Amino acid sequence: MRISELSRRSAVPSATIKFYLREGLLPPGRATAATQAEYGEAHLRRLRLIRALIGVRGLTVNATREVLAAVSEHEADTHQVLGLVLGARPVDKDEEPDHGPGSSDVDVLVAQMGWQVSKYAPARRVIAETLESLRSLGADCTWRTLIPYAQLAQQTAVVDLDQLKDADDSVTRAERAVLLTILLEPALLALRRMAQEHESAVRHGG
Amino acid sequence: MRISELSRRSAVPSATIKFYLREGLLPPGRATAATQAEYGEAHLRRLRLIRALIGVRGLTVNATREVLAAVSEHEADTHQVLGLVLGARPVDKDEEPDHGPGSSDVDVLVAQMGWQVSKYAPARRVIAETLESLRSLGADCTWRTLIPYAQLAQQTAVVDLDQLKDADDSVTRAERAVLLTILLEPALLALRRMAQEHESAVRHGG
Repeated sequence: MRISELSRRSAVPSATIKFYLREGLLPPGRATAATQAEYGEAHLRRLRLIRALIGVRGLTVNATREVLAAVSEHEADTHQVLGLVLGARPVDKDEEPDHGPGSSDVDVLVAQMGWQVSKYAPARRVIAETLESLRSLGADCTWRTLIPYAQLAQQTAVVDLDQLKDADDSVTRAERAVLLTILLEPALLALRRMAQEHESAVRHGG
Repeated sequence: MRISELSRRSAVPSATIKFYLREGLLPPGRATAATQAEYGEAHLRRLRLIRALIGVRGLTVNATREVLAAVSEHEADTHQVLGLVLGARPVDKDEEPDHGPGSSDVDVLVAQMGWQVSKYAPARRVIAETLESLRSLGADCTWRTLIPYAQLAQQTAVVDLDQLKDADDSVTRAERAVLLTILLEPALLALRRMAQEHESAVRHGG
């Protein structure tokens, strides 16, 4: 297809596609004339992944280029690809794992759940900080408080990963993982708010 | 207790407590001298709720004053108090429910779940917008996609509400509801990310 059709089918303006081509995010098409090139379905899939990484995950052009290169390199290794797009940083040997306040609670939580989670996962710090701020506000919170939530998170992750199963190729799977992880987040919190409202009505009479 | 002890026990600076007193968020203490007053445990609880509403939920001083007044008015009605602090807006007769794109999916979802949720809950719009943006990115998403997530959200809400059960009074319950709802949100998303990493490792070999 020509760039105009690629633009129409992806809903990405031609000027933006040309920018991605210049920046090396999108591989060049097959030249058919001095100023014309032909693009295929792989370009369309790649373009959707770029939009997901930049527009949805909010990555910079440079960070997107790195992720795309890593996705291509590890195309056969689904776990590696998911880790890359879901933002678990690759282990940097020089970097120390987080030993800040609350981190030992997170270690116990992960051990109790039997989770295989990188020592360097940014999510660990988020949980440690949440426990710290809940405690500073007088709430009695430890890893035990989070166990039922972690069990529900595990079930959620099963639903998430099931939705990636029938993706044909690793680029599509990577794109879907970004959309599912990042875009669904506000909706999951909104579902919890609605469920709280319902549960409160059931218990206390609406 | 004197204002200095109230400050120490609440970890709120005396100057901030005096500001809350001037703004009418905190009721005055019992005057013991021309420039001295005595504060009780109720002040401490109220102060924690104010900090939760302003510092954690990010409400303005005026909005906090309104919520506190409403909490006092409906002290006996737990559901009403939870609704107030969790941000389900009271029904405004002049306001129309959301009929924007995606809202009919949300109606079906709520009906399928059998949820009692206000037509005016802000969470409805968040879910409708998420479905819309997923669709605009080419993902095939309807209310059916969200059903397994809604079922897990319902179980999460049961855990949430259970944690409010043993609160002694409605001010404490309101405070705990704010902390649980707002402060836990980033931790719940972080737990999902870790669980995804684990589930991906299990399925695809870590």
